Amino acid sequence: MSRWEPDARGRLELAALALYLERGFEQTTVAQIAERAGLAERTFFRHYADKREVLFGGSAELQTRLVTAVAEAPAEAAPIDAVKVGLDVIGGALQGRFEHARKRHRVIRANPELLERELIKLAALATALAEALEQRGVPQLTANLAAEAGIAAFKIGFNRWISAAKEQDLALLMRDSLDELRAVTAGQ
Amino acid sequence: MSRWEPDARGRLELAALALYLERGFEQTTVAQIAERAGLAERTFFRHYADKREVLFGGSAELQTRLVTAVAEAPAEAAPIDAVKVGLDVIGGALQGRFEHARKRHRVIRANPELLERELIKLAALATALAEALEQRGVPQLTANLAAEAGIAAFKIGFNRWISAAKEQDLALLMRDSLDELRAVTAGQ
Repeated sequence: MSRWEPDARGRLELAALALYLERGFEQTTVAQIAERAGLAERTFFRHYADKREVLFGGSAELQTRLVTAVAEAPAEAAPIDAVKVGLDVIGGALQGRFEHARKRHRVIRANPELLERELIKLAALATALAEALEQRGVPQLTANLAAEAGIAAFKIGFNRWISAAKEQDLALLMRDSLDELRAVTAGQ
Repeated sequence: MSRWEPDARGRLELAALALYLERGFEQTTVAQIAERAGLAERTFFRHYADKREVLFGGSAELQTRLVTAVAEAPAEAAPIDAVKVGLDVIGGALQGRFEHARKRHRVIRANPELLERELIKLAALATALAEALEQRGVPQLTANLAAEAGIAAFKIGFNRWISAAKEQDLALLMRDSLDELRAVTAGQ
């Protein structure tokens, strides 16, 4: 079952996002989110630990997809090429969710507590990526460097994506960002 | 006046670090830190907002040094070369503080709340670095990429530094990390 079907998780997420945009994150209660979603408050807590977590429900799945893609990249692929395979999969997973991602970003940017959570999730993603590379036999230092490069490309590509007037190809923007990172570090 | 002189700030920082290592961060109170430093509790709060902040007292100074160095790099320097100048200055500022940095790292690593603060400070450093590059006339995207590369080199060089058995040249480790980042992104 996809989590984007109109299931409880998805309904709670949409309701929360709508309320955060209407009233602000601080001013919204879990009770209000549950009510808007037409669900009981206890249902909310079966799915999310708190009203912050409802904005990060997709993080674990994204991380799993990234790690799986890196693990399954061709054995002969260079570390950075395994990272590219991972970014392509993440880009594909988020493609089509442009409006949602923009709204979510607007809420997160307005709240320091949410920005912190976003940083923590990104750091976890970098660690998971480095570990996935090490599992491929990549030495630790190289794995850490390739993971940092990958997460930088993810962050910058994602920001370009949500800053555009209409939806562009996210995977392509991430790849472009990685290419430009290479050019910049080479002093070009 | 250097903040490493036996002034109130420095004494509070050393006392806090010693207590965090002896009893754990959670178990230490501000009153105990002040007592160990031979100072009044109100003196603590004149210098630090809380017992977390005492571990991050050097962040603002480090950021100022980085931004100043980047601003003062030769006008013709490529963005990544301006970043290197900044890393050299940061490396120089931390050089000689090896034992202190190791202890601090041990405390931070043991506590998720402190790790979060560290992530926030690093994100702020990346933003400040990107802005300093933009001030040099570097286009925003390039500035963001070069800043990400610089912070990655800082993080990885710093981790190599504090993981070594004895103190090495931090600035050199950061430069090496940046060179290796270039090689990794080039698929070498």
